[in-house]
Amino acid sequence: MRVMGLDPGLRALGWGVIETSGSRLSHVANGICRTGTGPLGTRLVSLFEQLTEVWERHLPDAAAVEHTFVNKDGASTLKLGQARGIAMLVPARAGAEVGEYAPNAVKKAVVGVGHADKRQIEHMVRLQLPGVQISGQDAADALAVAICHAHMSQSRALVLA
Amino acid sequence: MRVMGLDPGLRALGWGVIETSGSRLSHVANGICRTGTGPLGTRLVSLFEQLTEVWERHLPDAAAVEHTFVNKDGASTLKLGQARGIAMLVPARAGAEVGEYAPNAVKKAVVGVGHADKRQIEHMVRLQLPGVQISGQDAADALAVAICHAHMSQSRALVLA
Repeated sequence: MRVMGLDPGLRALGWGVIETSGSRLSHVANGICRTGTGPLGTRLVSLFEQLTEVWERHLPDAAAVEHTFVNKDGASTLKLGQARGIAMLVPARAGAEVGEYAPNAVKKAVVGVGHADKRQIEHMVRLQLPGVQISGQDAADALAVAICHAHMSQSRALVLA
Repeated sequence: MRVMGLDPGLRALGWGVIETSGSRLSHVANGICRTGTGPLGTRLVSLFEQLTEVWERHLPDAAAVEHTFVNKDGASTLKLGQARGIAMLVPARAGAEVGEYAPNAVKKAVVGVGHADKRQIEHMVRLQLPGVQISGQDAADALAVAICHAHMSQSRALVLA
């Protein structure tokens, strides 16, 4: 199974694709879709087109997004929401299931504890995906969400077996 | 010029199309795209498809969205943002300019003052678009944003003339 993790943002949208075979995980690709300044509509179209291109290149079976929001101010959360709308639209349009995970669930799945910092997460992502070259922080976060989804799917499969 | 106003929401996304000819406004159509319960990705795809269908049926030259957010909690704002992302993506993908207006600017353009309530706005929308049948509150708000954009475009045209 191929899973794409997504870390949405309007300026930088991280993505990471991994493959699971039994309990083994392997890295496929990761990157960051970026938008410059300009009208909001144009930036959303750019994210949509970049992400659609990435999706079609790697054809994942499922997608996963962290369920988080900046609570400091409404304007930032609205911006994040707009980018997140695009991040969920692209896989859902392709017929893929889109999992949503709380930040603590992602940390727990990747590091083993719910209160890990960014460096610990990146370290564990590297350990679990040998040889991975990470494009940046947003891509590392996206790979972590993909790993979380892979673990959760395995747990569900074990429960159903 | 044809303008589509949009009042985004995940459950109900209002839209309204008007036509301007000089300083005369006329109503073309209005409605509400609705989504039921279900996975977020599926609801966003439904909004995207409904709105794309409406856009292609009426082919506006421009679009306008209110720039607003619920500041009460992050979760509501994130939800609104996701729907707003779709509302801006559809016209921008079609190459249309998407205007954004603060709620006060919309009220001022439609009612004449920046602190009008919903009933006053709907009343003035009816007066400015004779014969209009309004599909609901979200559609009335969408028509108000379209009227605001029409007024603003005329002011800009006068300044440039």
